[in-house]
This record gives sequence, C-alpha cells and structure tokens, in this order.
Amino acid sequence: MNETKTLASYIVSNRWEDIPADVRHEAKRAIINVVGCAIGGSPHPAVTTAIRALSPFSGERTASVIGRVERLDPLHASLMNGISSHVEDYDDTTPKNYSHTSSPVGSALFAYASANRVRGRDFVEAFILGFEAASRVGNVVYPSHYDVGWHMTGTIGVFGAAAAIGRLIGLTEQQMVWALGLAATQSAGLREMFGSMGKAFHPGRSAQNGYAAALLAQAGFTSGERGIEGSRGFAHVLASTRDLSKIPTRLGQDFDLRENTYKPFPCGIVNHPTIDGAIQIHDEHRPDPSSIVAVRLRVAPLVLDLCNQQNITKGLQGKFSVYHGAAVGLVRGKGGLREYTDEAVNEPSIKRVREMTTATGDPSITEDQAHVEVELNDGRRLSKFVEQSLGNIHRPLTDKQLEEKFRDQALLVLPASEVESVIQQCWRIDQLDDVGELVRTTVPAAASVV
Amino acid sequence: MNETKTLASYIVSNRWEDIPADVRHEAKRAIINVVGCAIGGSPHPAVTTAIRALSPFSGERTASVIGRVERLDPLHASLMNGISSHVEDYDDTTPKNYSHTSSPVGSALFAYASANRVRGRDFVEAFILGFEAASRVGNVVYPSHYDVGWHMTGTIGVFGAAAAIGRLIGLTEQQMVWALGLAATQSAGLREMFGSMGKAFHPGRSAQNGYAAALLAQAGFTSGERGIEGSRGFAHVLASTRDLSKIPTRLGQDFDLRENTYKPFPCGIVNHPTIDGAIQIHDEHRPDPSSIVAVRLRVAPLVLDLCNQQNITKGLQGKFSVYHGAAVGLVRGKGGLREYTDEAVNEPSIKRVREMTTATGDPSITEDQAHVEVELNDGRRLSKFVEQSLGNIHRPLTDKQLEEKFRDQALLVLPASEVESVIQQCWRIDQLDDVGELVRTTVPAAASVV
Repeated sequence: MNETKTLASYIVSNRWEDIPADVRHEAKRAIINVVGCAIGGSPHPAVTTAIRALSPFSGERTASVIGRVERLDPLHASLMNGISSHVEDYDDTTPKNYSHTSSPVGSALFAYASANRVRGRDFVEAFILGFEAASRVGNVVYPSHYDVGWHMTGTIGVFGAAAAIGRLIGLTEQQMVWALGLAATQSAGLREMFGSMGKAFHPGRSAQNGYAAALLAQAGFTSGERGIEGSRGFAHVLASTRDLSKIPTRLGQDFDLRENTYKPFPCGIVNHPTIDGAIQIHDEHRPDPSSIVAVRLRVAPLVLDLCNQQNITKGLQGKFSVYHGAAVGLVRGKGGLREYTDEAVNEPSIKRVREMTTATGDPSITEDQAHVEVELNDGRRLSKFVEQSLGNIHRPLTDKQLEEKFRDQALLVLPASEVESVIQQCWRIDQLDDVGELVRTTVPAAASVV
Repeated sequence: MNETKTLASYIVSNRWEDIPADVRHEAKRAIINVVGCAIGGSPHPAVTTAIRALSPFSGERTASVIGRVERLDPLHASLMNGISSHVEDYDDTTPKNYSHTSSPVGSALFAYASANRVRGRDFVEAFILGFEAASRVGNVVYPSHYDVGWHMTGTIGVFGAAAAIGRLIGLTEQQMVWALGLAATQSAGLREMFGSMGKAFHPGRSAQNGYAAALLAQAGFTSGERGIEGSRGFAHVLASTRDLSKIPTRLGQDFDLRENTYKPFPCGIVNHPTIDGAIQIHDEHRPDPSSIVAVRLRVAPLVLDLCNQQNITKGLQGKFSVYHGAAVGLVRGKGGLREYTDEAVNEPSIKRVREMTTATGDPSITEDQAHVEVELNDGRRLSKFVEQSLGNIHRPLTDKQLEEKFRDQALLVLPASEVESVIQQCWRIDQLDDVGELVRTTVPAAASVV
C-alpha cells in the first residue's frame, strides 16, 4: 500500500457534496469552539511574547491574527493563532487519539483566509479534510506514539495544516504527496513542554510549518514519496507500533469530527472528571474551604502520568495538576479561565486544599471517570463518583453551551456586539463569501487595547 | 543530573581563552568547507525553489544568502544557507554520530552575521559551542536514534543553531535552557527524505528553527526546563536507548570538532570507500567502460541500509546509490559535483555499469572500507580493497585539499578573485572585525546571474 498517496488523492479530489450534513455541522461546532479559544487566549503572555520576538521578522503584513491588533504575514499569523487557540488548554479533543486538531488546522486556515479571499464553503471543506488527514495520521500511531511522550497536537497537526492549505491552494496529487512528506519530516512536539509556553507553541508551529509545506510543494520542492508509510517515514520512526490501515479504511465515509469533543474546563482533559466531581460536591454541600482536611482522588492511571504536578506556582502548570483541578472545584465551585491564572494558583485557600489532595491511579477507572472524596474537620466524608465527565462524547456540550463558552472567552477581548457577530458568522460560515471578514471581526479596535 | 542546564551553563559562560588552538583551527577548516559547500550548492534547484516559494513571506531583507543575489530576513536566509550547504551532500561528517553539524550551525550564524555586526572571534566561538552542543546531544542518542530512521543533521542541528545564536545574542543561563528546550521540541527530520530535496531542508529548517528558539527564549517564551533529559524530553522520546553522560563528560575539554571529517565526494559518506576503490581501479587499469561485464561490491551492511538505490533517474538519488558511486568511479575516474547531476545519472555508459553492479553487505567490512571487483569481457578480474577511505579521520583532507575542494565549488558561482578572497577570509576569520563582509563576498554580482 501507499498510504501517503491514498490520502493525498482523497484530499485533492473530494467534493463538497461528498461530505455528510452532520459532519458539516460538527465542523461548525469545532470552528466556533476554536475561534472562541483563539480570542480568549489572544491576550495571553505567550502570544504577546511570541509576537514581540518574531514580529521583526514578519513579511508583508497581509494577515490578521485572531483577537489581536497586530498584523503579520500569513505564516507568522498561523503561528500566533495556534498559540492563542491552545494556550488555555480549552480547545477540542478527539478522545480516540487524544489530540487537539482544530487548533493547528484552523489556525493556518484563518491566517490564509484573512490574507486571501476564501469562500466559506471551500474553507469548511478544507477544514474537514485537514482535520481528517491529521486525525487519521494520528490513529495510525496512537497509542504507542503518544505514550512515549509525543504531543500529538504538534506531531499530527502539521499534516492537517499541510492538507488544508494544500487543498485551498489547489495542489495536484503529486504536490500533495510532497506536502504531506514535508509535513512528516517537520513533525515534532514533546510532552515535556507541558506546563510551559512550549506546549501551545506546538499547534502554532504545526500550523505554520504545514502551511509552508504546502507552499513549498506547490513550487516543486520535492520530498520522499512515502513520508507516512516509508521504512524511514513518520509511522516507523515516531512510533513503536502502528496500523497503517487506519488511513484508507472507510476514507470519505467515516469522519473523526463525529468523535470530537469540546472542553468545559480550560486544562488537560483527563482532569475534567475530577473537576466535575469536585464542583458537584461544592454545589451540593458548600463545604467551607477551611474545614477541608483531606481530599482523596481515585483516577485513571494516565492522569498521574500527565497531570501529577503538585508543587506549582504558574497558571500554565495548574492545567496539568489534577490536584489544582480538585482544589478549584471545591473552593470556587468552578473551573474557568480565571481558575488557571498565576493568581489563582497562588491563592492561599486554593493552595492549601491543593496541597492536602492526594491521588491514586486505579486501572478500573476510565479516563472519563473519577472518584472524589473530601474529609472535613468534623469527620464527615463527602464523596462523588463521576461516571461520564461533562463534555465527553456521551455528555457533549450543546450548541448553546458552545455559544456560552464562546461568549465567556470572547467578552474578555471584544464588545458584546462583536461577540454576537462572530458567533453568527461561525454558524453560517459555509455561506460566507469571504471568511476574512469573520477573522477581521475578531480583531479588537486598536484604541481598546491597553 | 540536569543535562540541559549543564549544557546551557557551559554555552553561556565559556571564554575564548578556554578553547584550545587546535580546536580553533579545526573550526576554520569546518567553516571553509561549509562555506564552499553553500556556494557550490547555491544554484541548485532546491534553493531556487525554496526561495521562490518563501521569499514572498520574507521579513525585512537585512540578510545575505551565501552564493545568491536575493536578500531575505535572517531566519529565511538561515533556511536557504542550510539547504545550499547540504544539498550536494558534500559537507562535513562527524563519524562518531554520523551527523553533518556545520551546516545547521554555520547557516544560522552566517545569516545572523550578514545582518548584524559580529566580530570574527565571537563568531568562531559561537560556531565551536554550537557544534559541540549539537554533537553532544547527538552522542546521547546515537546509534539507536539514527538506526530507527532519524536524520541527525536535522534533529540535532536545531540544538546547535539555538546554542550558537543564543550565545551571540547573549542569552542568560535560564534563557539558554529555554532555547534548548524550544530546540528539543522542534527536533525533526526523517531519513525517508533521502534522495529528495527534503533532505537538505533538514539543516535549513534546523538553522531557522534554532535561531527562532534563541529569539523566543530571549523574549521570555518559556519551555520545559528539562528539554533534553526529561521523562518526556528529547532523549527519551526520540531514542530507544540513550546515554546522558555524554553531555557533561569532559565538557569544555573534549571537542567533537577534533573528530570532524570532510568529504572528498558529494554523496552519502558510506559510499566513499567504494568510489575511492573504483577510482583507483580506473586510474591503474583504465578499463574501457564497454568492456565491463560485472561489478561486485562487498561493503559494510549500513551501506545497503542507506544507499541501496539501483533504479534511479535523479542526481539527488545518485547520492544514495552505492551502485552509482561505483559506476562513476569506474567510467569517469572521479566523483565530483558533475557526477551527481541528473545528466550523469542518465548517461548511458554510467547507467549501464550501474545496472550491472551488485553489492553484498559484509559485517567484517567497516564503514571506512570497501572491496570492489570488476569483471571484464575478456575474463580479467580487477579488484581493490580500500582499508581507509580518503577523507576519513585517518586520511584527512589537508588544508590545501580543502582549499582545492572550495575552489572547485566556488568557481561555479564566483570569479576567481572573489574565490581567493573568501578563502583568505575563512582562514583568518577569527581576526575579522565584521564577518558580514565574508558573507557578502560570496554573493555574485547581480549582472553575472543568468
């Protein structure tokens, strides 16, 4: 088999009519979610710092950056969109491969569309194809690839961005093979970066590098012909086990977007059931935080692999601390953006509860589940078992909840009228004549930026 | 141990006086070699294609590209220097880890120095430190990392470029830790690209990405603190076995530059003993190519892993065909740049001898050795055993031979007076007030470019 060629052929030859209506709708849900995350993350120091460092190297400033007044060339805009949309760990997740694919794919597409006129229908189609390409490449190597320490949002995102941009700029099948090969040979991103700005750098760089791969391939820059399946290609080199049949099987019929989920809390998704349970205990019993003397968690073993940070001082670290998740749920009864700031991580009452929280990995507990037990100073024990975490595939956020999540984030940056305008444009994005208008609506008025 | 911090501390605190004189001289040999390769490779279609695709995205054009009239921003110039210096597979090799380190390190440094005033002494020091950083990171993961299919010139080059540029721009130790972390999380490059333009893309992208890592770290963009040794860091994720002691052991005392070698032939180094033996047979016996009826090679098994391409049509493929190496040695008595063009690969007499060449992997033969046997149509058998290949650590190219190699390449692009001027500047680079002058001397007059 030649999986790279099979995938390339599919991406360049798909027709809009071939995509089922439910997949098109799910694409809009993913788009409204990722745009909201990009706006909400746009004021983050990671974005500001990256712009400060790299803006002097920007080419012609033809592109808008979601949520920011600065303009950049489209490649640098892709990078910034990727950082902003992932930095709060609030974007989507495809549980079958634990990747966050809309960020790298959408970030490149929105940067492109802000600088080049793109019809909404073509945009949504490219988004769906890019998402599918990335996710299928991920399915080939999951779980061994993920388990060893790769951050899949980075490693597979670059394929998605190359596929999406390559589709929009009209690559031939041969050029798409090269674009995927150049994506394969730029595939990177380590889980060691979790808790630092480096994590959000991954989808940003993937968006930028995938976009560049498409441009290079269009110009005739060649790659190996078997970037995915070759004996020294992506699947062999970046994973100890692999199943290449995940690329051709039911290609064009099954769509991983149907299995996409949206986070109710801006942090590592494996913490969600714990936060969910802690909030339920808070809402039902309203324990005084000072009365809590112990918190005991039983969680899936993966949680302790990913989110075992106890001694933390930064908001970004809190996103990978299941202890912090339990603490904010119990102390504040919520886990929103404001629970993952540096201030929240260092707030004494939260810090105190976090430090008295312990966690045990239990193989009988799935990654959608958690058992939370709180011991109070009067001896009472409050406990909650979460069987299906809010936001997972069995308890998905509704369209209305996605809108609410969008508003919570976008109102940090934009006036309400603009927020509603972007929401409306996202829901009818496939009918827009120029997706660039949508991106430009996310840019705050310069005068409003401090 | 915290190897990332150890390495960062060394890079930022080294003094020029700490570097032994023989290492400084070897740095100049590496520099003259890599500059010659960059000039010789600068007209290659890979460079022209990359410039055509990405020049529209260039920032302010403050940097020169070695051997080219186009100006770009320093990050894009780093990319182009990396492609040109590696595309002919003529650059240096450190046999202990089979990487070609001067290309990514030198490419970033020359781009930086063409846009910012850099004293020669500071340049050479940054080059030595960048080379050492990359090579030691390579030693940690070699050979398992290489064997699985990583192209080390890409994967470790990004560390070298980050270290070298980070040193020049004066990073603190903490910033250097982040620069190395951002390098680790961009580490990429697959051997599947061999035989395509994608191979030379690796040192180019590494130079560009390492340079960007240093800029980001300087601005305060954080990474994980243990990018190299962390449990989800470079050494764990990109290699099945590793020896982290290779970083601190005799750091500042041993220098891998002392083990660097320079290629006499522009192709995969494991082909060199075969070409060497074929040329010796040609020179001693002058067999008519049409009289050759069989060529039998006995080579190290790695040769067949890397260079087993028989059915080829492109010059870039010829670089990874031990059969082509034997054919050009026997037919032309040489293996220079002109033996690795598309024309040479398709020349009937070379093609004929290539197609009748067979190779056997023999574990008793080292990678510096080859046995070449030629059978003629009169029944005669000519054979040669090469025990130490020309250019290897035991038969190094002399300074004069390096100059000759430089001239052969540079005269393709520059007039003789400029060629001699660059050679002289390379030998006294540590005394230059402005290394940018050297780079600008490599740029051909616009009128001379077709």
